[in-house]
Amino acid sequence: MKAVDSGKGCLFMYGNYAGDVMNFDMAVEMAAADGIRVETVLVTDDVYSSSQFARRRGVAGDFFVFKVAAAKAAMGAGLDEVKAAAERANRYTRSMGVALSAATLPATGKIMFEIADGDMEIGMGIHGEPGVKRGSLEAADRVVDQIMPFILQDLPFVKGDEVSVLVNGLGGLPLMDLHIVYRRVVRILQGEGIGVHNSFVGNYATSMDMVGMSITLMKLDKELKSLLDAPCDTPYCVIRD
Amino acid sequence: MKAVDSGKGCLFMYGNYAGDVMNFDMAVEMAAADGIRVETVLVTDDVYSSSQFARRRGVAGDFFVFKVAAAKAAMGAGLDEVKAAAERANRYTRSMGVALSAATLPATGKIMFEIADGDMEIGMGIHGEPGVKRGSLEAADRVVDQIMPFILQDLPFVKGDEVSVLVNGLGGLPLMDLHIVYRRVVRILQGEGIGVHNSFVGNYATSMDMVGMSITLMKLDKELKSLLDAPCDTPYCVIRD
Repeated sequence: MKAVDSGKGCLFMYGNYAGDVMNFDMAVEMAAADGIRVETVLVTDDVYSSSQFARRRGVAGDFFVFKVAAAKAAMGAGLDEVKAAAERANRYTRSMGVALSAATLPATGKIMFEIADGDMEIGMGIHGEPGVKRGSLEAADRVVDQIMPFILQDLPFVKGDEVSVLVNGLGGLPLMDLHIVYRRVVRILQGEGIGVHNSFVGNYATSMDMVGMSITLMKLDKELKSLLDAPCDTPYCVIRD
Repeated sequence: MKAVDSGKGCLFMYGNYAGDVMNFDMAVEMAAADGIRVETVLVTDDVYSSSQFARRRGVAGDFFVFKVAAAKAAMGAGLDEVKAAAERANRYTRSMGVALSAATLPATGKIMFEIADGDMEIGMGIHGEPGVKRGSLEAADRVVDQIMPFILQDLPFVKGDEVSVLVNGLGGLPLMDLHIVYRRVVRILQGEGIGVHNSFVGNYATSMDMVGMSITLMKLDKELKSLLDAPCDTPYCVIRD
Protein backbone atom coordinates (compact mmCIF):
# COMPACT_ATOMS: atom_id res chain seq x y z
CA MET A 1 0.00 0.00 0.00
CA LYS A 2 1.16 3.51 -0.77
CA ALA A 3 -0.59 6.63 0.48
CA VAL A 4 0.27 9.78 -1.41
CA ASP A 5 -0.62 13.00 0.34
CA SER A 6 -1.07 15.67 -2.31
CA GLY A 7 -1.76 18.38 0.25
CA LYS A 8 -5.47 18.40 -0.59
CA GLY A 9 -6.36 14.94 0.60
CA CYS A 10 -4.97 11.47 0.46
CA LEU A 11 -4.76 8.75 -2.18
CA PHE A 12 -4.79 5.10 -1.13
CA MET A 13 -3.27 2.72 -3.67
CA TYR A 14 -3.01 -1.02 -3.18
CA GLY A 15 -3.37 -4.32 -4.96
CA ASN A 16 -6.93 -5.60 -5.28
CA TYR A 17 -7.33 -8.31 -2.62
CA ALA A 18 -10.46 -8.89 -0.54
CA GLY A 19 -8.77 -8.43 2.84
CA ASP A 20 -7.01 -5.25 1.75
CA VAL A 21 -10.18 -3.79 0.29
CA MET A 22 -12.08 -4.47 3.53
CA ASN A 23 -9.40 -2.85 5.68
CA PHE A 24 -8.78 0.14 3.44
CA ASP A 25 -12.51 0.80 3.11
CA MET A 26 -12.63 1.04 6.89
CA ALA A 27 -9.62 3.36 6.84
CA VAL A 28 -11.36 5.60 4.29
CA GLU A 29 -14.40 5.84 6.58
CA MET A 30 -12.23 6.69 9.57
CA ALA A 31 -10.38 9.35 7.57
CA ALA A 32 -13.68 10.79 6.31
CA ALA A 33 -14.91 11.01 9.90
CA ASP A 34 -11.82 13.15 10.60
CA GLY A 35 -12.63 15.39 7.63
CA ILE A 36 -9.86 14.02 5.39
CA ARG A 37 -10.74 13.42 1.77
CA VAL A 38 -9.45 10.04 0.60
CA GLU A 39 -9.50 8.63 -2.90
CA THR A 40 -8.61 5.05 -3.77
CA VAL A 41 -6.97 3.40 -6.77
CA LEU A 42 -6.96 -0.39 -6.84
CA VAL A 43 -4.14 -1.99 -8.80
CA THR A 44 -5.53 -4.75 -11.03
CA ASP A 45 -2.64 -5.91 -13.22
CA ASP A 46 -2.76 -9.71 -12.86
CA VAL A 47 -4.03 -10.79 -16.30
CA TYR A 48 -5.06 -14.31 -15.43
CA SER A 49 -7.00 -13.60 -12.24
CA SER A 50 -10.25 -12.52 -13.95
CA SER A 51 -11.57 -11.78 -17.43
CA GLN A 52 -12.92 -8.47 -16.04
CA PHE A 53 -10.15 -5.90 -15.65
CA ALA A 54 -11.62 -4.21 -12.57
CA ARG A 55 -11.97 -7.51 -10.71
CA ARG A 56 -8.38 -8.60 -11.19
CA ARG A 57 -5.81 -8.99 -8.44
CA GLY A 58 -3.01 -6.49 -8.05
CA VAL A 59 0.49 -7.92 -8.04
CA ALA A 60 3.82 -6.38 -9.07
CA GLY A 61 2.02 -3.70 -11.10
CA ASP A 62 2.00 -1.73 -7.84
CA PHE A 63 5.59 -0.87 -8.70
CA PHE A 64 4.64 1.19 -11.76
CA VAL A 65 1.38 2.62 -10.41
CA PHE A 66 2.93 3.87 -7.16
CA LYS A 67 5.94 5.37 -8.96
CA VAL A 68 3.80 7.26 -11.48
CA ALA A 69 1.40 8.60 -8.84
CA ALA A 70 4.19 9.63 -6.48
CA ALA A 71 6.02 11.47 -9.27
CA LYS A 72 2.81 13.29 -10.18
CA ALA A 73 2.27 14.30 -6.55
CA ALA A 74 5.91 15.40 -6.22
CA MET A 75 5.34 17.75 -9.17
CA GLY A 76 2.63 19.50 -7.17
CA ALA A 77 -0.44 18.05 -8.87
CA GLY A 78 -3.76 18.01 -7.02
CA LEU A 79 -5.47 14.88 -5.74
CA ASP A 80 -7.68 14.41 -8.80
CA GLU A 81 -4.73 14.67 -11.18
CA VAL A 82 -2.65 12.26 -9.08
CA LYS A 83 -5.52 9.80 -9.01
CA ALA A 84 -5.99 10.10 -12.78
CA ALA A 85 -2.30 9.42 -13.36
CA ALA A 86 -2.43 6.34 -11.10
CA GLU A 87 -5.51 5.07 -12.91
CA ARG A 88 -3.89 5.55 -16.29
CA ALA A 89 -0.74 3.71 -15.12
CA ASN A 90 -2.91 0.84 -13.91
CA ARG A 91 -4.92 0.76 -17.14
CA TYR A 92 -1.69 0.39 -19.15
CA THR A 93 -0.09 -2.24 -16.89
CA ARG A 94 -0.35 -6.03 -17.20
CA SER A 95 1.36 -8.82 -15.24
CA MET A 96 1.47 -12.57 -15.04
CA GLY A 97 3.66 -14.87 -13.02
CA VAL A 98 4.73 -18.36 -12.11
CA ALA A 99 5.21 -19.97 -8.71
CA LEU A 100 7.44 -22.88 -7.73
CA SER A 101 6.83 -22.78 -4.00
CA ALA A 102 4.71 -20.96 -1.44
CA ALA A 103 5.70 -18.22 0.98
CA THR A 104 6.33 -18.99 4.65
CA LEU A 105 3.82 -17.29 6.93
CA PRO A 106 6.00 -15.45 9.51
CA ALA A 107 3.52 -15.88 12.38
CA THR A 108 3.42 -19.68 12.09
CA GLY A 109 6.65 -20.54 10.27
CA LYS A 110 4.56 -22.76 7.96
CA ILE A 111 4.21 -22.49 4.20
CA MET A 112 0.88 -21.11 3.00
CA PHE A 113 0.13 -23.84 0.43
CA GLU A 114 1.86 -26.77 -1.24
CA ILE A 115 3.49 -27.11 -4.63
CA ALA A 116 5.23 -30.46 -5.06
CA ASP A 117 9.00 -30.47 -5.59
CA GLY A 118 9.72 -30.19 -9.31
CA ASP A 119 6.31 -28.68 -10.06
CA MET A 120 5.33 -25.13 -10.94
CA GLU A 121 2.06 -23.28 -11.47
CA ILE A 122 1.71 -20.65 -14.17
CA GLY A 123 -0.60 -17.74 -13.38
CA MET A 124 -0.84 -18.59 -9.68
CA GLY A 125 -1.58 -15.79 -7.22
CA ILE A 126 0.93 -14.95 -4.49
CA HIS A 127 -1.29 -16.47 -1.79
CA GLY A 128 -1.89 -19.66 -3.78
CA GLU A 129 -4.88 -18.63 -5.89
CA PRO A 130 -5.16 -21.10 -8.78
CA GLY A 131 -3.52 -20.31 -12.11
CA VAL A 132 -3.59 -21.50 -15.72
CA LYS A 133 -1.87 -24.82 -15.24
CA ARG A 134 0.18 -26.77 -12.75
CA GLY A 135 2.77 -29.15 -14.09
CA SER A 136 6.39 -30.15 -14.17
CA LEU A 137 9.06 -27.51 -14.00
CA GLU A 138 10.10 -26.31 -17.47
CA ALA A 139 13.06 -24.30 -18.71
CA ALA A 140 12.80 -20.56 -18.03
CA ASP A 141 12.51 -19.67 -21.74
CA ARG A 142 9.59 -22.08 -22.18
CA VAL A 143 7.84 -20.60 -19.14
CA VAL A 144 8.23 -17.08 -20.54
CA ASP A 145 6.94 -18.28 -23.93
CA GLN A 146 3.76 -19.45 -22.22
CA ILE A 147 3.25 -16.33 -20.10
CA MET A 148 3.95 -13.59 -22.63
CA PRO A 149 1.00 -14.21 -25.01
CA PHE A 150 -1.46 -13.74 -22.13
CA ILE A 151 0.13 -10.38 -21.27
CA LEU A 152 0.56 -9.14 -24.84
CA GLN A 153 -2.92 -10.05 -26.04
CA ASP A 154 -4.66 -8.58 -23.04
CA LEU A 155 -4.03 -4.85 -23.36
CA PRO A 156 -3.10 -5.52 -26.20
CA PHE A 157 0.52 -4.46 -26.60
CA VAL A 158 1.15 -4.05 -30.32
CA LYS A 159 3.85 -3.22 -32.82
CA GLY A 160 5.19 0.30 -32.34
CA ASP A 161 4.31 0.43 -28.64
CA GLU A 162 6.96 1.34 -26.12
CA VAL A 163 7.00 -0.36 -22.73
CA SER A 164 8.78 -0.47 -19.40
CA VAL A 165 9.57 -4.02 -18.29
CA LEU A 166 9.59 -5.33 -14.72
CA VAL A 167 10.80 -8.87 -14.06
CA ASN A 168 9.94 -9.21 -10.39
CA GLY A 169 11.20 -11.94 -8.11
CA LEU A 170 8.82 -13.10 -5.39
CA GLY A 171 11.67 -13.53 -2.89
CA GLY A 172 13.32 -16.92 -3.26
CA LEU A 173 14.23 -17.11 -6.95
CA PRO A 174 17.89 -16.33 -7.68
CA LEU A 175 18.64 -13.08 -9.50
CA MET A 176 20.36 -15.11 -12.23
CA ASP A 177 17.05 -16.73 -13.12
CA LEU A 178 15.32 -13.36 -13.26
CA HIS A 179 17.87 -12.19 -15.81
CA ILE A 180 17.38 -15.34 -17.90
CA VAL A 181 13.66 -14.54 -17.90
CA TYR A 182 14.34 -10.92 -18.84
CA ARG A 183 16.48 -11.94 -21.81
CA ARG A 184 13.61 -14.01 -23.19
CA VAL A 185 11.06 -11.26 -22.55
CA VAL A 186 13.15 -8.79 -24.55
CA ARG A 187 13.57 -11.23 -27.44
CA ILE A 188 9.82 -11.74 -27.62
CA LEU A 189 9.18 -7.98 -27.49
CA GLN A 190 11.75 -7.43 -30.25
CA GLY A 191 9.99 -10.07 -32.34
CA GLU A 192 6.70 -8.21 -31.87
CA GLY A 193 8.20 -4.83 -32.77
CA ILE A 194 7.58 -3.45 -29.28
CA GLY A 195 10.25 -1.06 -27.93
CA VAL A 196 11.74 -1.34 -24.44
CA HIS A 197 12.17 2.09 -22.83
CA ASN A 198 13.75 0.75 -19.64
CA SER A 199 13.71 -2.27 -17.35
CA PHE A 200 13.78 -3.35 -13.72
CA VAL A 201 14.99 -6.83 -12.79
CA GLY A 202 14.97 -7.81 -9.12
CA ASN A 203 12.93 -8.50 -6.02
CA TYR A 204 10.67 -5.44 -5.92
CA ALA A 205 7.27 -6.79 -4.83
CA THR A 206 7.93 -9.92 -2.82
CA SER A 207 5.96 -12.57 -0.99
CA MET A 208 8.50 -13.45 1.72
CA ASP A 209 10.55 -16.47 0.53
CA MET A 210 8.21 -17.57 -2.28
CA VAL A 211 10.09 -19.05 -5.21
CA GLY A 212 8.64 -17.53 -8.35
CA MET A 213 8.52 -14.44 -10.49
CA SER A 214 6.20 -12.28 -12.52
CA ILE A 215 6.56 -10.33 -15.73
CA THR A 216 4.97 -6.87 -15.88
CA LEU A 217 4.72 -4.52 -18.84
CA MET A 218 3.54 -0.93 -18.67
CA LYS A 219 2.74 0.68 -22.01
CA LEU A 220 4.16 4.18 -22.06
CA ASP A 221 2.69 7.36 -23.42
CA LYS A 222 4.45 10.70 -23.14
CA GLU A 223 3.14 11.51 -19.66
CA LEU A 224 3.65 8.04 -18.19
CA LYS A 225 7.20 7.98 -19.53
CA SER A 226 8.08 11.33 -17.96
CA LEU A 227 6.53 10.33 -14.61
CA LEU A 228 8.30 6.96 -14.63
CA ASP A 229 11.60 8.64 -15.45
CA ALA A 230 11.24 11.35 -12.81
CA PRO A 231 14.04 11.02 -10.22
CA CYS A 232 13.20 9.02 -7.13
CA ASP A 233 15.08 7.58 -4.24
CA THR A 234 13.92 4.70 -2.07
CA PRO A 235 16.11 2.16 -0.27
CA TYR A 236 15.69 -0.41 -3.04
CA CYS A 237 15.10 1.52 -6.23
CA VAL A 238 16.79 4.61 -7.54
CA ILE A 239 15.88 6.45 -10.74
CA ARG A 240 18.07 9.39 -11.55
CA ASP A 241 17.56 12.37 -13.80
CA MET B 1 35.77 -11.65 -8.92
CA LYS B 2 36.47 -8.08 -9.92
CA ALA B 3 39.31 -7.05 -12.20
CA VAL B 4 40.24 -3.40 -12.02
CA ASP B 5 42.31 -2.13 -14.91
CA SER B 6 44.25 0.89 -13.70
CA GLY B 7 45.82 1.52 -17.10
CA LYS B 8 49.17 0.20 -15.91
CA GLY B 9 48.21 -3.39 -15.32
CA CYS B 10 45.41 -5.35 -13.81
CA LEU B 11 44.27 -6.16 -10.27
CA PHE B 12 42.48 -9.44 -9.58
CA MET B 13 40.32 -9.44 -6.44
CA TYR B 14 38.33 -12.41 -5.26
CA GLY B 15 37.31 -14.32 -2.18
CA ASN B 16 39.87 -16.81 -0.93
CA TYR B 17 38.66 -20.25 -2.05
CA ALA B 18 40.89 -23.06 -3.29
CA GLY B 19 39.23 -23.42 -6.69
CA ASP B 20 39.29 -19.69 -7.33
CA VAL B 21 42.93 -19.40 -6.31
CA MET B 22 43.88 -22.22 -8.68
CA ASN B 23 42.02 -20.69 -11.62
CA PHE B 24 43.14 -17.12 -11.01
CA ASP B 25 46.76 -18.19 -10.60
CA MET B 26 46.52 -19.74 -14.06
CA ALA B 27 44.95 -16.54 -15.38
CA VAL B 28 47.81 -14.49 -13.90
CA GLU B 29 50.32 -16.73 -15.70
CA MET B 30 48.44 -16.39 -18.99
CA ALA B 31 48.29 -12.60 -18.60
CA ALA B 32 52.01 -12.47 -17.73
CA ALA B 33 52.76 -14.45 -20.90
CA ASP B 34 50.95 -11.68 -22.80
CA GLY B 35 53.06 -9.03 -21.06
CA ILE B 36 50.28 -7.82 -18.76
CA ARG B 37 51.20 -7.10 -15.18
CA VAL B 38 48.67 -8.57 -12.78
CA GLU B 39 48.46 -8.12 -9.03
CA THR B 40 46.12 -10.09 -6.77
CA VAL B 41 44.26 -9.26 -3.57
CA LEU B 42 42.50 -12.12 -1.83
CA VAL B 43 39.50 -11.20 0.29
CA THR B 44 39.71 -12.97 3.66
CA ASP B 45 36.89 -11.57 5.77
CA ASP B 46 35.19 -14.70 7.14
CA VAL B 47 36.19 -14.60 10.82
CA TYR B 48 35.36 -18.16 11.73
CA SER B 49 37.03 -19.93 8.79
CA SER B 50 40.57 -19.85 10.22
CA SER B 51 42.48 -18.37 13.14
CA GLN B 52 45.04 -17.07 10.60
CA PHE B 53 43.76 -13.98 8.82
CA ALA B 54 45.49 -14.71 5.49
CA ARG B 55 44.04 -18.23 5.32
CA ARG B 56 40.44 -17.19 5.82
CA ARG B 57 37.68 -17.49 3.24
CA GLY B 58 36.34 -14.46 1.48
CA VAL B 59 32.60 -13.93 1.68
CA ALA B 60 30.50 -10.76 1.52
CA GLY B 61 33.56 -8.63 2.36
CA ASP B 62 34.12 -8.57 -1.40
CA PHE B 63 31.47 -5.86 -1.44
CA PHE B 64 33.62 -3.38 0.50
CA VAL B 65 36.99 -4.39 -0.95
CA PHE B 66 35.83 -4.13 -4.58
CA LYS B 67 34.10 -0.80 -3.98
CA VAL B 68 37.14 0.76 -2.32
CA ALA B 69 39.57 -0.47 -5.00
CA ALA B 70 37.31 0.56 -7.86
CA ALA B 71 36.88 4.05 -6.41
CA LYS B 72 40.66 4.38 -6.04
CA ALA B 73 41.18 3.29 -9.66
CA ALA B 74 38.46 5.68 -10.86
CA MET B 75 40.39 8.51 -9.21
CA GLY B 76 43.35 7.72 -11.46
CA ALA B 77 45.56 5.93 -8.94
CA GLY B 78 48.23 3.54 -10.19
CA LEU B 79 48.13 -0.22 -9.74
CA ASP B 80 50.22 -0.24 -6.56
CA GLU B 81 48.04 2.37 -4.90
CA VAL B 82 44.85 0.56 -5.92
CA LYS B 83 46.23 -2.70 -4.57
CA ALA B 84 47.22 -1.01 -1.30
CA ALA B 85 43.71 0.43 -0.90
CA ALA B 86 42.15 -2.99 -1.54
CA GLU B 87 44.47 -4.60 0.98
CA ARG B 88 43.66 -1.98 3.60
CA ALA B 89 39.91 -2.44 3.00
CA ASN B 90 40.34 -6.21 3.43
CA ARG B 91 42.43 -5.76 6.58
CA TYR B 92 39.65 -3.67 8.17
CA THR B 93 36.77 -5.94 7.13
CA ARG B 94 35.27 -8.84 9.11
CA SER B 95 32.26 -11.06 8.39
CA MET B 96 30.38 -13.97 9.84
CA GLY B 97 27.15 -15.62 8.80
CA VAL B 98 24.49 -18.21 9.39
CA ALA B 99 22.92 -20.71 7.01
CA LEU B 100 19.48 -22.34 7.16
CA SER B 101 19.65 -24.20 3.85
CA ALA B 102 22.06 -24.91 1.02
CA ALA B 103 22.19 -23.40 -2.45
CA THR B 104 20.85 -25.31 -5.45
CA LEU B 105 23.59 -26.16 -7.95
CA PRO B 106 22.22 -24.88 -11.29
CA ALA B 107 23.88 -27.61 -13.37
CA THR B 108 22.23 -30.43 -11.44
CA GLY B 109 19.20 -28.81 -9.82
CA LYS B 110 20.28 -30.48 -6.55
CA ILE B 111 21.15 -28.79 -3.28
CA MET B 112 24.84 -28.76 -2.42
CA PHE B 113 24.54 -30.07 1.15
CA GLU B 114 21.84 -30.78 3.72
CA ILE B 115 20.64 -28.80 6.71
CA ALA B 116 17.60 -30.36 8.35
CA ASP B 117 14.35 -28.38 8.38
CA GLY B 118 14.28 -26.22 11.49
CA ASP B 119 18.06 -26.31 11.90
CA MET B 120 20.66 -23.65 11.25
CA GLU B 121 24.45 -23.50 11.30
CA ILE B 122 26.30 -20.47 12.60
CA GLY B 123 29.58 -19.64 10.88
CA MET B 124 28.98 -22.04 7.98
CA GLY B 125 30.66 -21.29 4.64
CA ILE B 126 28.53 -20.70 1.55
CA HIS B 127 29.46 -24.09 0.08
CA GLY B 128 28.73 -25.95 3.33
CA GLU B 129 32.07 -25.59 5.10
CA PRO B 130 31.50 -26.34 8.80
CA GLY B 131 30.81 -23.52 11.23
CA VAL B 132 30.72 -22.89 14.98
CA LYS B 133 27.62 -24.87 15.80
CA ARG B 134 24.65 -26.50 14.19
CA GLY B 135 21.40 -26.54 16.11
CA SER B 136 17.77 -25.59 16.20
CA LEU B 137 16.63 -22.38 14.59
CA GLU B 138 16.68 -19.46 17.01
CA ALA B 139 15.17 -15.99 16.92
CA ALA B 140 17.06 -13.53 14.69
CA ASP B 141 18.15 -11.35 17.63
CA ARG B 142 19.64 -14.38 19.42
CA VAL B 143 21.51 -15.39 16.27
CA VAL B 144 22.97 -11.88 15.93
CA ASP B 145 23.92 -11.91 19.62
CA GLN B 146 25.99 -15.05 18.98
CA ILE B 147 27.64 -13.81 15.79
CA MET B 148 28.59 -10.27 16.75
CA PRO B 149 31.15 -11.06 19.50
CA PHE B 150 33.21 -13.11 17.01
CA ILE B 151 33.29 -10.17 14.58
CA LEU B 152 33.89 -7.45 17.16
CA GLN B 153 36.66 -9.23 19.04
CA ASP B 154 38.53 -10.24 15.93
CA LEU B 155 39.74 -6.93 14.49
CA PRO B 156 38.94 -5.76 17.21
CA PHE B 157 36.30 -3.09 16.67
CA VAL B 158 36.37 -0.85 19.73
CA LYS B 159 34.67 2.15 21.28
CA GLY B 160 35.07 5.25 19.14
CA ASP B 161 35.48 3.32 15.89
CA GLU B 162 33.30 4.14 12.95
CA VAL B 163 32.08 1.36 10.67
CA SER B 164 30.09 0.64 7.54
CA VAL B 165 27.62 -2.22 8.03
CA LEU B 166 26.58 -4.79 5.43
CA VAL B 167 23.80 -7.24 6.26
CA ASN B 168 23.97 -9.50 3.25
CA GLY B 169 21.32 -12.02 2.25
CA LEU B 170 22.57 -15.21 0.61
CA GLY B 171 19.59 -15.31 -1.75
CA GLY B 172 16.59 -16.99 -0.14
CA LEU B 173 16.14 -15.10 3.13
CA PRO B 174 13.37 -12.48 3.01
CA LEU B 175 14.43 -8.83 3.13
CA MET B 176 12.29 -8.38 6.23
CA ASP B 177 14.54 -10.78 8.14
CA LEU B 178 17.65 -8.93 6.98
CA HIS B 179 16.25 -5.72 8.44
CA ILE B 180 15.45 -7.46 11.74
CA VAL B 181 19.09 -8.57 11.82
CA TYR B 182 20.28 -5.06 10.99
CA ARG B 183 18.26 -3.54 13.83
CA ARG B 184 19.98 -5.85 16.31
CA VAL B 185 23.43 -5.21 14.83
CA VAL B 186 22.97 -1.46 15.28
CA ARG B 187 21.79 -1.87 18.88
CA ILE B 188 24.87 -3.93 19.69
CA LEU B 189 27.16 -1.38 18.02
CA GLN B 190 25.49 1.45 19.92
CA GLY B 191 26.04 -0.48 23.15
CA GLU B 192 29.74 -0.79 22.29
CA GLY B 193 30.09 2.89 21.43
CA ILE B 194 30.88 2.13 17.79
CA GLY B 195 29.50 4.60 15.24
CA VAL B 196 27.66 3.56 12.08
CA HIS B 197 28.69 5.69 9.09
CA ASN B 198 26.31 3.98 6.65
CA SER B 199 24.69 0.64 5.94
CA PHE B 200 23.72 -1.76 3.18
CA VAL B 201 20.94 -4.29 3.74
CA GLY B 202 20.06 -6.65 0.90
CA ASN B 203 21.17 -9.49 -1.33
CA TYR B 204 24.58 -8.25 -2.49
CA ALA B 205 26.80 -11.34 -2.48
CA THR B 206 24.54 -14.31 -2.97
CA SER B 207 24.82 -18.07 -3.21
CA MET B 208 21.87 -18.76 -5.53
CA ASP B 209 18.80 -19.61 -3.39
CA MET B 210 20.66 -20.30 -0.14
CA VAL B 211 18.66 -19.27 2.93
CA GLY B 212 21.01 -17.41 5.22
CA MET B 213 22.79 -14.15 5.79
CA SER B 214 26.08 -12.67 6.92
CA ILE B 215 27.03 -9.59 8.87
CA THR B 216 30.06 -7.60 7.67
CA LEU B 217 31.71 -4.62 9.31
CA MET B 218 34.39 -2.48 7.71
CA LYS B 219 36.23 -0.14 10.07
CA LEU B 220 36.62 3.24 8.40
CA ASP B 221 39.54 5.60 8.40
CA LYS B 222 39.52 8.86 6.46
CA GLU B 223 40.64 7.34 3.16
CA LEU B 224 38.40 4.26 3.32
CA LYS B 225 35.43 6.46 4.12
CA SER B 226 36.03 8.74 1.15
CA LEU B 227 36.53 5.79 -1.20
CA LEU B 228 33.41 4.02 0.09
CA ASP B 229 31.39 7.21 -0.31
CA ALA B 230 32.65 7.96 -3.82
CA PRO B 231 29.74 7.86 -6.30
CA CYS B 232 29.20 4.56 -8.07
CA ASP B 233 26.55 3.06 -10.24
CA THR B 234 25.99 -0.65 -10.77
CA PRO B 235 22.69 -2.39 -11.53
CA TYR B 236 22.17 -3.34 -7.89
CA CYS B 237 23.94 -0.71 -5.82
CA VAL B 238 24.03 3.03 -6.21
CA ILE B 239 26.05 5.43 -4.06
CA ARG B 240 25.58 9.07 -4.89
CA ASP B 241 27.63 12.12 -4.18
